Amino acid sequence: MPIVRATRRVHFCSAHMLRRPEWSEEENRSVFGDCSNPNWHGHNYVLDITVEGPVDPETGFVMDLKKLKEAVTARVVADVDHRNLNVEVPWLTGVMPSTENFAVAIWDRLADALPDGVRLQRVFLRETPNNAVEYTGPSEAERR
Amino acid sequence: MPIVRATRRVHFCSAHMLRRPEWSEEENRSVFGDCSNPNWHGHNYVLDITVEGPVDPETGFVMDLKKLKEAVTARVVADVDHRNLNVEVPWLTGVMPSTENFAVAIWDRLADALPDGVRLQRVFLRETPNNAVEYTGPSEAERR
Amino acid sequence: MPIVRATRRVHFCSAHMLRRPEWSEEENRSVFGDCSNPNWHGHNYVLDITVEGPVDPETGFVMDLKKLKEAVTARVVADVDHRNLNVEVPWLTGVMPSTENFAVAIWDRLADALPDGVRLQRVFLRETPNNAVEYTGPSEAERR
Amino acid sequence: MPIVRATRRVHFCSAHMLRRPEWSEEENRSVFGDCSNPNWHGHNYVLDITVEGPVDPETGFVMDLKKLKEAVTARVVADVDHRNLNVEVPWLTGVMPSTENFAVAIWDRLADALPDGVRLQRVFLRETPNNAVEYTGPSEAERR
Amino acid sequence: MPIVRATRRVHFCSAHMLRRPEWSEEENRSVFGDCSNPNWHGHNYVLDITVEGPVDPETGFVMDLKKLKEAVTARVVADVDHRNLNVEVPWLTGVMPSTENFAVAIWDRLADALPDGVRLQRVFLRETPNNAVEYTGPSEAERR
Amino acid sequence: MPIVRATRRVHFCSAHMLRRPEWSEEENRSVFGDCSNPNWHGHNYVLDITVEGPVDPETGFVMDLKKLKEAVTARVVADVDHRNLNVEVPWLTGVMPSTENFAVAIWDRLADALPDGVRLQRVFLRETPNNAVEYTGPSEAERR
Repeated sequence: MPIVRATRRVHFCSAHMLRRPEWSEEENRSVFGDCSNPNWHGHNYVLDITVEGPVDPETGFVMDLKKLKEAVTARVVADVDHRNLNVEVPWLTGVMPSTENFAVAIWDRLADALPDGVRLQRVFLRETPNNAVEYTGPSEAERR
Repeated sequence: MPIVRATRRVHFCSAHMLRRPEWSEEENRSVFGDCSNPNWHGHNYVLDITVEGPVDPETGFVMDLKKLKEAVTARVVADVDHRNLNVEVPWLTGVMPSTENFAVAIWDRLADALPDGVRLQRVFLRETPNNAVEYTGPSEAERR
Repeated sequence: MPIVRATRRVHFCSAHMLRRPEWSEEENRSVFGDCSNPNWHGHNYVLDITVEGPVDPETGFVMDLKKLKEAVTARVVADVDHRNLNVEVPWLTGVMPSTENFAVAIWDRLADALPDGVRLQRVFLRETPNNAVEYTGPSEAERR
Repeated sequence: MPIVRATRRVHFCSAHMLRRPEWSEEENRSVFGDCSNPNWHGHNYVLDITVEGPVDPETGFVMDLKKLKEAVTARVVADVDHRNLNVEVPWLTGVMPSTENFAVAIWDRLADALPDGVRLQRVFLRETPNNAVEYTGPSEAERR
Repeated sequence: MPIVRATRRVHFCSAHMLRRPEWSEEENRSVFGDCSNPNWHGHNYVLDITVEGPVDPETGFVMDLKKLKEAVTARVVADVDHRNLNVEVPWLTGVMPSTENFAVAIWDRLADALPDGVRLQRVFLRETPNNAVEYTGPSEAERR
Repeated sequence: MPIVRATRRVHFCSAHMLRRPEWSEEENRSVFGDCSNPNWHGHNYVLDITVEGPVDPETGFVMDLKKLKEAVTARVVADVDHRNLNVEVPWLTGVMPSTENFAVAIWDRLADALPDGVRLQRVFLRETPNNAVEYTGPSEAERR
């Protein structure tokens, strides 16, 4: 069976700030710029979840993308859409909600939510029209 | 001289909530849904400002769109980008920051910022990939 | 109250053909080209529904766009998504499902589905990346 | 018959500069900025041509959009695609190739190229992701 | 010579259904959902074909993308555009026309259509704004 | 620390031609088509620069994307925006400005401009809506 990648896109809107409370205002401004505004800002995130696996000979699917959407909705979107990433998301507690950290956290939410034989291949997270991040999972060294 | 419309697009990111403090949680939920989350959410706004006027015979411009961009940046973007629309924007104080009200307020910020002979024709404000608002200014009755 | 336009976008996928059974194959080919293929083809339609009205002073809304989405889903998308426009849609029976006729039929489905004081302003229907149609309702003469 | 608007999009790539030879370098820089570079620059233009008319009861078309595309290709795209707007386009000779002037010139190329009963309603010309122009034809006063 | 990847995008529109005739209506609904509608539905497909190879020192090309477009048009688009994927495409006979199977079949149509020294690197096929598939060819094990 | 990729997008507009002066007009036409027009043409380029590295535990960043933008602006955009790629860009002198060669040259401009521990992973350059190129750097063999 050929190995194919399938991607499902979802959208959500969240507030966040990038700010270390133990740093001074100047340090925060210097490192995080406008993103450190203590009154929050927010984004329309675009999230592409890619899974990889053999094509099922009967369905022609790597997996049912509706099921993938349900998993992404239940494990990610329901927790972050119209939410504040710094204060409301249990699986982001203590995490600086940069796009990088957010993508890695989404990976960890989804990696074990897939059917047998299907693996999470990529989390692509667009924060703005000009900024995006992708994570393809831990390296072999990390996995050990 | 032909009358032409020219549009300049800008992007910005803001936090907001839609919530009336004098209403109960239930009323807020019922009317504003997830947008009433008291912990904020946010958006990547796309703003298209359209001006209309005769084409200058020497420059071929309705107006210099760089100047339009500077006006939009100074009067709108600088105040709202990476900001909280409910608490940080003087010209939105006391205004429910719905897309509709936001677009009207942007109109009022820009209508008198244009060169002689050029009129603001349209404010188009996209809040999400699926929701947008446009305002073309007060009616003649309102202007009186 | 300012009069503002608000737009909600929805997506759906349908099959159709453009073909007059009383015409010869040659006539159909000549007028409708590949769209006359009797084995069907299909599109990802993008539908923008624009409503117009005064902004409610309490909510800041022309109308709740979630309610608009519900109306569009119930009256249009539920009938046409993953459907065949020629044979399965009661309100398109006997209608050549061109983008033009489809947009007009969508207008007729929605014009009376809006709250008091809100009027349907525009149906914009994109059939392909390069082809789209817009309908803003019957003229005054037609309405009489 | 309902009156509907149909739009066909085309793409082309051109070089141009905005520069008045009788002006000094300083004046050109001041008015046209980087666009005055005497070594040229260029754009991927996106052109949306909108026509308006009654829907034909047999075809469901305002007009055959393939015919519209052929007219736009023959009268506009063939002359400007992979061309220099300042020096190679007969119908732009002596015209400052701003987006505004270009849109008006395109209107004049197409207004009389449509079938009976169909009128050119709008020329929308996007020069960059952030800048665009639209022209809806001469006013009644101009037409007299 | 550096090894570079070049991508050509094409668009086409097709009808299809996902349905196994030997299954009951309930099984088909359960696995394929609305896609199993026996009256067909369809999509605007976006197809990105990526080739990889050394850059020719004289032309600066991996290969002439116009030639790539001609190959994609002749071997893929001409067979599937405005066609029914289930019943009209010889190289899809007996294939469930899921996006996955479709992408693999497109790979097989193109892999041997490229000039010497250029290899097909990726077939990316978008079926809807939210669903897409990519195939990068058989693994080494499969190729043996 | 997880290894993540972050991408910053920039836009610029340039003129160029693809033409070998030592070739006849016929040869140039045959190989480069309309791109060989000696009067130039141009494009709105979209450039995605991807960097890869471990996520900083304090900032959550692979690197500050504003710093990446500054590097891309200083080393690439400032030299090519509103410029002629054939005659004005020192680091393209003697280079046929195909998208492939341009992407490789951009790689060479940026590969050593990144902070310690961050590597350039990909240069993606879109020349038109349908044509794009990506370069992921020299192979190990080339690097030796």
